[in-house]
Amino acid sequence: MTDDTPRWLDERQMNAWRGWIEAVTHIGQRIESDLRDDSGLTTDDYEVLVRLSEAPDRRLRMADLAHQVMNSPSRLSQRVDRMVRSGLLVRERCQDDRRGWFAVMTEEGYQRLSAAAPGHVESVRAHFIDQLSDEEIVFLAELMPRLARTEPD
Amino acid sequence: MTDDTPRWLDERQMNAWRGWIEAVTHIGQRIESDLRDDSGLTTDDYEVLVRLSEAPDRRLRMADLAHQVMNSPSRLSQRVDRMVRSGLLVRERCQDDRRGWFAVMTEEGYQRLSAAAPGHVESVRAHFIDQLSDEEIVFLAELMPRLARTEPD
Repeated sequence: MTDDTPRWLDERQMNAWRGWIEAVTHIGQRIESDLRDDSGLTTDDYEVLVRLSEAPDRRLRMADLAHQVMNSPSRLSQRVDRMVRSGLLVRERCQDDRRGWFAVMTEEGYQRLSAAAPGHVESVRAHFIDQLSDEEIVFLAELMPRLARTEPD
Repeated sequence: MTDDTPRWLDERQMNAWRGWIEAVTHIGQRIESDLRDDSGLTTDDYEVLVRLSEAPDRRLRMADLAHQVMNSPSRLSQRVDRMVRSGLLVRERCQDDRRGWFAVMTEEGYQRLSAAAPGHVESVRAHFIDQLSDEEIVFLAELMPRLARTEPD
Protein backbone atom coordinates (compact mmCIF):
# COMPACT_ATOMS: atom_id res chain seq x y z
CA MET A 1 0.00 0.00 0.00
CA THR A 2 1.38 3.37 -0.99
CA ASP A 3 1.11 6.21 1.46
CA ASP A 4 0.18 9.29 -0.56
CA THR A 5 -0.15 11.62 2.42
CA PRO A 6 1.79 14.78 1.51
CA ARG A 7 4.95 15.17 3.59
CA TRP A 8 4.13 18.67 4.88
CA LEU A 9 7.01 20.71 6.30
CA ASP A 10 7.46 20.77 10.08
CA GLU A 11 7.63 24.10 11.88
CA ARG A 12 11.39 24.49 11.66
CA GLN A 13 11.49 23.53 7.98
CA MET A 14 8.65 25.97 7.31
CA ASN A 15 10.53 28.75 9.12
CA ALA A 16 13.60 28.06 6.99
CA TRP A 17 11.61 27.96 3.74
CA ARG A 18 9.29 30.93 4.37
CA GLY A 19 12.21 32.88 5.83
CA TRP A 20 14.20 32.12 2.68
CA ILE A 21 11.40 33.40 0.41
CA GLU A 22 10.96 36.53 2.51
CA ALA A 23 14.69 37.26 2.77
CA VAL A 24 15.14 36.76 -0.99
CA THR A 25 12.26 39.17 -1.67
CA HIS A 26 13.32 41.76 0.92
CA ILE A 27 17.01 41.89 -0.03
CA GLY A 28 16.32 41.67 -3.75
CA GLN A 29 13.84 44.54 -3.73
CA ARG A 30 16.10 46.85 -1.73
CA ILE A 31 19.21 46.24 -3.79
CA GLU A 32 17.23 46.50 -7.03
CA SER A 33 15.76 49.80 -5.88
CA ASP A 34 19.13 51.27 -4.81
CA LEU A 35 20.74 50.26 -8.10
CA ARG A 36 17.93 51.66 -10.22
CA ASP A 37 17.91 54.95 -8.31
CA ASP A 38 21.71 55.28 -8.51
CA SER A 39 22.43 54.11 -12.02
CA GLY A 40 19.27 53.30 -13.97
CA LEU A 41 20.48 49.70 -14.31
CA THR A 42 18.56 46.60 -13.21
CA THR A 43 20.35 43.89 -11.24
CA ASP A 44 19.94 41.65 -14.30
CA ASP A 45 21.72 44.26 -16.47
CA TYR A 46 24.40 44.62 -13.83
CA GLU A 47 25.10 40.90 -13.69
CA VAL A 48 25.47 40.70 -17.48
CA LEU A 49 27.86 43.68 -17.46
CA VAL A 50 29.97 42.15 -14.66
CA ARG A 51 30.33 38.85 -16.52
CA LEU A 52 31.36 40.63 -19.73
CA SER A 53 33.78 42.91 -17.87
CA GLU A 54 35.58 39.78 -16.59
CA ALA A 55 35.74 38.11 -20.04
CA PRO A 56 38.61 38.52 -22.54
CA ASP A 57 37.90 41.48 -24.86
CA ARG A 58 34.70 42.04 -22.84
CA ARG A 59 32.83 39.54 -25.01
CA LEU A 60 31.14 36.18 -24.49
CA ARG A 61 29.24 33.79 -26.72
CA MET A 62 25.55 34.12 -25.99
CA ALA A 63 25.37 30.46 -24.90
CA ASP A 64 28.24 30.93 -22.42
CA LEU A 65 26.75 34.15 -21.07
CA ALA A 66 23.35 32.46 -20.65
CA HIS A 67 25.03 29.67 -18.69
CA GLN A 68 26.92 32.12 -16.46
CA VAL A 69 23.84 34.16 -15.59
CA MET A 70 21.68 30.99 -15.36
CA ASN A 71 19.20 32.18 -17.96
CA SER A 72 17.55 30.25 -20.75
CA PRO A 73 18.86 31.30 -24.20
CA SER A 74 15.51 32.88 -25.11
CA ARG A 75 15.29 34.90 -21.91
CA LEU A 76 18.89 36.09 -22.19
CA SER A 77 18.28 37.04 -25.81
CA GLN A 78 15.43 39.37 -24.82
CA ARG A 79 17.54 40.93 -22.09
CA VAL A 80 20.48 41.46 -24.44
CA ASP A 81 18.15 43.08 -27.00
CA ARG A 82 17.05 45.60 -24.38
CA MET A 83 20.66 46.28 -23.40
CA VAL A 84 21.65 46.76 -27.07
CA ARG A 85 18.87 49.35 -27.44
CA SER A 86 20.24 51.11 -24.32
CA GLY A 87 23.73 51.24 -25.85
CA LEU A 88 25.28 48.96 -23.19
CA LEU A 89 26.07 46.06 -25.54
CA VAL A 90 26.37 45.13 -29.19
CA ARG A 91 25.84 41.74 -30.79
CA GLU A 92 28.58 40.48 -33.12
CA ARG A 93 28.46 37.40 -35.30
CA CYS A 94 31.05 34.69 -34.52
CA GLN A 95 33.61 34.48 -37.35
CA ASP A 96 34.15 30.73 -36.98
CA ASP A 97 30.50 29.80 -36.48
CA ARG A 98 28.11 31.74 -38.67
CA ARG A 99 25.10 30.68 -36.60
CA GLY A 100 26.60 31.95 -33.34
CA TRP A 101 26.62 35.39 -31.76
CA PHE A 102 28.74 37.19 -29.21
CA ALA A 103 27.46 39.73 -26.73
CA VAL A 104 30.08 42.50 -26.53
CA MET A 105 30.15 45.25 -23.91
CA THR A 106 30.39 48.75 -25.35
CA GLU A 107 32.58 51.49 -23.91
CA GLU A 108 29.36 53.08 -22.66
CA GLY A 109 28.46 49.79 -20.96
CA TYR A 110 31.86 49.71 -19.30
CA GLN A 111 31.54 53.31 -18.11
CA ARG A 112 28.03 52.69 -16.78
CA LEU A 113 29.21 49.60 -14.88
CA SER A 114 32.24 51.44 -13.47
CA ALA A 115 30.06 54.32 -12.32
CA ALA A 116 27.50 51.99 -10.73
CA ALA A 117 29.88 49.59 -8.98
CA PRO A 118 30.91 51.62 -5.88
CA GLY A 119 27.30 52.40 -4.99
CA HIS A 120 26.19 48.86 -5.67
CA VAL A 121 28.81 47.34 -3.37
CA GLU A 122 27.74 49.74 -0.61
CA SER A 123 24.13 48.62 -1.14
CA VAL A 124 25.14 44.93 -0.99
CA ARG A 125 27.01 45.66 2.23
CA ALA A 126 24.11 47.57 3.77
CA HIS A 127 21.41 45.01 3.00
CA PHE A 128 23.37 41.76 3.19
CA ILE A 129 27.02 41.65 4.29
CA ASP A 130 26.75 44.10 7.20
CA GLN A 131 23.68 42.24 8.51
CA LEU A 132 25.75 39.07 8.98
CA SER A 133 28.30 38.04 11.60
CA ASP A 134 31.67 36.70 10.42
CA GLU A 135 30.49 33.22 11.36
CA GLU A 136 27.33 33.62 9.27
CA ILE A 137 29.36 34.80 6.26
CA VAL A 138 31.61 31.73 6.53
CA PHE A 139 28.52 29.55 6.72
CA LEU A 140 26.81 31.14 3.71
CA ALA A 141 30.04 31.22 1.68
CA GLU A 142 30.14 27.43 2.03
CA LEU A 143 26.43 26.64 1.79
CA MET A 144 25.16 28.97 -0.95
CA PRO A 145 27.49 27.89 -3.79
CA ARG A 146 26.63 24.27 -2.92
CA LEU A 147 22.86 24.98 -2.93
CA ALA A 148 23.25 26.69 -6.31
CA ARG A 149 24.57 23.47 -7.87
CA THR A 150 22.28 20.86 -6.40
CA GLU A 151 20.33 18.38 -8.49
CA PRO A 152 17.62 16.36 -6.73
CA ASP A 153 18.00 12.55 -6.69
CA MET B 1 40.30 64.01 4.04
CA THR B 2 37.56 61.60 2.99
CA ASP B 3 38.54 58.21 1.70
CA ASP B 4 36.23 57.50 -1.23
CA THR B 5 37.86 54.21 -2.21
CA PRO B 6 35.01 51.72 -2.64
CA ARG B 7 35.00 49.03 0.04
CA TRP B 8 35.08 46.06 -2.35
CA LEU B 9 34.05 42.67 -0.95
CA ASP B 10 36.80 40.28 0.15
CA GLU B 11 36.90 36.75 -1.28
CA ARG B 12 34.76 35.18 1.43
CA GLN B 13 32.15 37.97 1.32
CA MET B 14 32.07 37.66 -2.47
CA ASN B 15 31.55 33.88 -2.22
CA ALA B 16 28.65 34.46 0.18
CA TRP B 17 27.07 37.14 -2.03
CA ARG B 18 27.57 35.51 -5.44
CA GLY B 19 26.59 32.16 -3.93
CA TRP B 20 23.41 33.77 -2.59
CA ILE B 21 22.48 35.21 -6.00
CA GLU B 22 23.19 31.90 -7.71
CA ALA B 23 21.30 29.82 -5.13
CA VAL B 24 18.31 32.18 -5.26
CA THR B 25 18.25 31.91 -9.07
CA HIS B 26 18.80 28.14 -9.18
CA ILE B 27 16.23 27.20 -6.54
CA GLY B 28 13.69 29.77 -7.72
CA GLN B 29 13.81 28.61 -11.34
CA ARG B 30 13.44 24.93 -10.47
CA ILE B 31 10.54 25.38 -8.06
CA GLU B 32 8.82 27.80 -10.45
CA SER B 33 9.19 25.31 -13.29
CA ASP B 34 7.87 22.35 -11.23
CA LEU B 35 4.87 24.37 -10.05
CA ARG B 36 4.01 25.63 -13.53
CA ASP B 37 4.29 22.16 -15.05
CA ASP B 38 2.19 20.60 -12.26
CA SER B 39 -0.49 23.19 -11.74
CA GLY B 40 -0.21 26.11 -14.17
CA LEU B 41 0.30 28.46 -11.21
CA THR B 42 3.27 30.80 -10.73
CA THR B 43 5.00 30.95 -7.35
CA ASP B 44 3.61 34.49 -7.00
CA ASP B 45 0.06 33.19 -7.54
CA TYR B 46 0.73 30.38 -5.10
CA GLU B 47 1.90 32.74 -2.37
CA VAL B 48 -1.21 34.92 -2.73
CA LEU B 49 -3.46 31.85 -2.56
CA VAL B 50 -1.67 30.55 0.57
CA ARG B 51 -2.07 33.89 2.37
CA LEU B 52 -5.78 34.04 1.50
CA SER B 53 -6.32 30.41 2.50
CA GLU B 54 -5.01 31.26 5.98
CA ALA B 55 -7.17 34.38 6.37
CA PRO B 56 -10.68 34.45 7.89
CA ASP B 57 -13.28 33.90 5.15
CA ARG B 58 -10.36 33.54 2.70
CA ARG B 59 -10.24 37.31 2.22
CA LEU B 60 -7.75 40.08 2.92
CA ARG B 61 -7.68 43.81 2.36
CA MET B 62 -5.46 44.57 -0.62
CA ALA B 63 -3.12 46.64 1.58
CA ASP B 64 -2.71 43.80 4.08
CA LEU B 65 -2.16 41.25 1.33
CA ALA B 66 0.45 43.52 -0.31
CA HIS B 67 2.24 43.76 3.03
CA GLN B 68 2.17 39.99 3.56
CA VAL B 69 3.57 39.17 0.13
CA MET B 70 5.98 42.13 0.29
CA ASN B 71 4.67 43.74 -2.90
CA SER B 72 3.99 47.36 -3.66
CA PRO B 73 0.25 48.10 -3.92
CA SER B 74 0.54 48.75 -7.67
CA ARG B 75 2.40 45.53 -8.35
CA LEU B 76 0.00 43.49 -6.24
CA SER B 77 -2.93 45.10 -8.01
CA GLN B 78 -1.66 43.91 -11.40
CA ARG B 79 -1.11 40.43 -10.07
CA VAL B 80 -4.58 40.29 -8.52
CA ASP B 81 -6.10 41.46 -11.82
CA ARG B 82 -4.46 38.54 -13.62
CA MET B 83 -5.67 36.11 -10.95
CA VAL B 84 -9.24 37.51 -11.20
CA ARG B 85 -9.16 36.89 -14.96
CA SER B 86 -8.03 33.31 -14.26
CA GLY B 87 -10.96 32.78 -11.88
CA LEU B 88 -8.76 32.29 -8.80
CA LEU B 89 -9.89 35.46 -6.98
CA VAL B 90 -12.56 38.11 -6.95
CA ARG B 91 -12.30 41.68 -5.76
CA GLU B 92 -14.96 42.91 -3.33
CA ARG B 93 -15.48 46.44 -2.10
CA CYS B 94 -15.08 46.97 1.66
CA GLN B 95 -18.48 47.77 3.21
CA ASP B 96 -17.04 50.08 5.88
CA ASP B 97 -14.52 51.85 3.66
CA ARG B 98 -15.82 52.60 0.18
CA ARG B 99 -12.34 53.30 -1.16
CA GLY B 100 -10.94 49.96 -0.02
CA TRP B 101 -11.01 46.55 -1.67
CA PHE B 102 -10.70 42.98 -0.49
CA ALA B 103 -9.09 40.20 -2.47
CA VAL B 104 -11.23 37.09 -1.97
CA MET B 105 -10.26 33.57 -2.94
CA THR B 106 -12.84 31.77 -5.08
CA GLU B 107 -13.78 28.12 -4.62
CA GLU B 108 -11.85 27.47 -7.84
CA GLY B 109 -8.81 29.21 -6.31
CA TYR B 110 -9.09 27.02 -3.23
CA GLN B 111 -9.39 23.86 -5.32
CA ARG B 112 -6.41 24.86 -7.46
CA LEU B 113 -4.29 25.56 -4.36
CA SER B 114 -5.35 22.27 -2.72
CA ALA B 115 -4.48 20.34 -5.88
CA ALA B 116 -1.11 22.09 -6.24
CA ALA B 117 0.07 21.92 -2.61
CA PRO B 118 1.23 18.27 -2.34
CA GLY B 119 3.38 18.54 -5.48
CA HIS B 120 4.72 21.93 -4.44
CA VAL B 121 5.84 20.72 -1.02
CA GLU B 122 7.64 17.79 -2.69
CA SER B 123 9.38 20.27 -5.00
CA VAL B 124 10.41 22.48 -2.05
CA ARG B 125 11.79 19.38 -0.32
CA ALA B 126 13.67 18.20 -3.40
CA HIS B 127 15.33 21.53 -4.23
CA PHE B 128 15.76 23.03 -0.75
CA ILE B 129 14.92 21.09 2.41
CA ASP B 130 16.42 17.73 1.38
CA GLN B 131 19.63 19.49 0.30
CA LEU B 132 20.20 20.76 3.86
CA SER B 133 21.45 19.03 7.01
CA ASP B 134 19.39 19.39 10.20
CA GLU B 135 22.03 21.83 11.47
CA GLU B 136 21.74 23.94 8.31
CA ILE B 137 17.94 24.03 8.62
CA VAL B 138 18.22 25.25 12.23
CA PHE B 139 20.68 27.91 11.09
CA LEU B 140 18.52 29.12 8.18
CA ALA B 141 15.33 29.01 10.29
CA GLU B 142 16.99 31.53 12.60
CA LEU B 143 18.88 33.63 10.07
CA MET B 144 16.44 34.00 7.15
CA PRO B 145 13.49 35.55 9.04
CA ARG B 146 15.95 37.99 10.63
CA LEU B 147 17.50 38.91 7.24
CA ALA B 148 14.00 39.46 5.86
CA ARG B 149 13.34 42.19 8.43
CA THR B 150 16.60 44.12 8.42
CA GLU B 151 16.82 47.84 7.88
CA PRO B 152 20.27 49.32 7.25
CA ASP B 153 21.53 51.90 9.73
